[in-house]
Amino acid sequence: MTTGEQGSKQRIKALVFDAYGTLFNPYTAQTVSEELFPGRGSELVRLWRAKQLEYTWLRSLMGRYSDFWEVTRAALEFSCRALNLSCTSSIYERLMQTYLEIEPYPEIRQALQELSSDYPLAILSNGTPEMLQAAVKSSKLEGVFSHLLSVDEVKIFKTSPRVYQLAPEKIGVGRGEIAFVSSNYWDAVGAKAFGFWTCWVNRSNAPPEELGLSPDATVSSISDLAKVLPH
Amino acid sequence: MTTGEQGSKQRIKALVFDAYGTLFNPYTAQTVSEELFPGRGSELVRLWRAKQLEYTWLRSLMGRYSDFWEVTRAALEFSCRALNLSCTSSIYERLMQTYLEIEPYPEIRQALQELSSDYPLAILSNGTPEMLQAAVKSSKLEGVFSHLLSVDEVKIFKTSPRVYQLAPEKIGVGRGEIAFVSSNYWDAVGAKAFGFWTCWVNRSNAPPEELGLSPDATVSSISDLAKVLPH
Repeated sequence: MTTGEQGSKQRIKALVFDAYGTLFNPYTAQTVSEELFPGRGSELVRLWRAKQLEYTWLRSLMGRYSDFWEVTRAALEFSCRALNLSCTSSIYERLMQTYLEIEPYPEIRQALQELSSDYPLAILSNGTPEMLQAAVKSSKLEGVFSHLLSVDEVKIFKTSPRVYQLAPEKIGVGRGEIAFVSSNYWDAVGAKAFGFWTCWVNRSNAPPEELGLSPDATVSSISDLAKVLPH
Repeated sequence: MTTGEQGSKQRIKALVFDAYGTLFNPYTAQTVSEELFPGRGSELVRLWRAKQLEYTWLRSLMGRYSDFWEVTRAALEFSCRALNLSCTSSIYERLMQTYLEIEPYPEIRQALQELSSDYPLAILSNGTPEMLQAAVKSSKLEGVFSHLLSVDEVKIFKTSPRVYQLAPEKIGVGRGEIAFVSSNYWDAVGAKAFGFWTCWVNRSNAPPEELGLSPDATVSSISDLAKVLPH
């Protein structure tokens, strides 16, 4: 549906989702990593993810953007070295490839199908356009999203307000009319600071972060999103 | 000495140091934390430090600065909760207090004494002015530094170029005339991106990060700094 079809009394006019960890399950990376490095795979994936995010924040603050594919690859190289794992370039490629073969969480296809009858759906992600297209394809979610929005358009990563600004600008609704959904607490807070209504998807019963702002709602699965959206 | 006394042929006209981990040893926090939570102290200090930095980056990117004392306290509260440690407010205060009772690394007093005969010395830190004054006092380094520069003046944290800009501006030398010294690889890279000559103090034989730039020199202790400074 298009935004023009929304009833004028409905507060939320579009749903915008974070990608990795929110819609797409990083489980494939875990599995492949554990196959490559038995007993060390989880440790590698954990450090890889931490460094990937750290590098996005540091590069954004320094004003030295490099795209998410490059940052992700750099974080992988550091992590392998820091853990003394002997990674060849074919191992790097195999692990990077998991981003392009990613699967959605079990509830995603049905939950998005249902939500899409009431709202236009979009992705707003640190991922490059190529990574997002590949993830949507491998997840069999083609045609579900009206917009795949990548930070690559503004050359800075989340939590810069310039990133969140992409959603109202490209979707054509007000920032207060957007519900933003992320499994990353810090991303939900960044979106809240920008002015979205925000929902934290807390899949692992994690404690909330201490960043001075809280999401408007919390769910444990995207199946529960419709119940908490404001009217 | 003042910058005016520098020989005009000397490239480096001032030495600027990061504070925590570079000059000041977080060992007291380790000890107190281990006394409070036997067997869990190191884990708490490690998560506390990681969250402290993460919150500085996220708040800076969001444009929601809160000072380092508040961010450090928030990171401690999150870390206690995330590790299921029962922290009372007197425990929080005891741990926060370690920042005000901090000690320098063993080589610092003598190394800075020697360096100060050739260069003016300054600190440039995420810490608040009060935290830096307390650290200098508890380290018995009063009178050693010409400037204690805090990010609090610009209300954003490292690695923003606005932070590094404080040093040339306040010390009154060109950015290319400053040698910046940090045990945090990412801080050395931020300083390098800004235009300082930079030295990484790698006390723990850590691997370099993958941030697209490298420090100009690496030492394992500040005793070795004089040997690597450019002429």
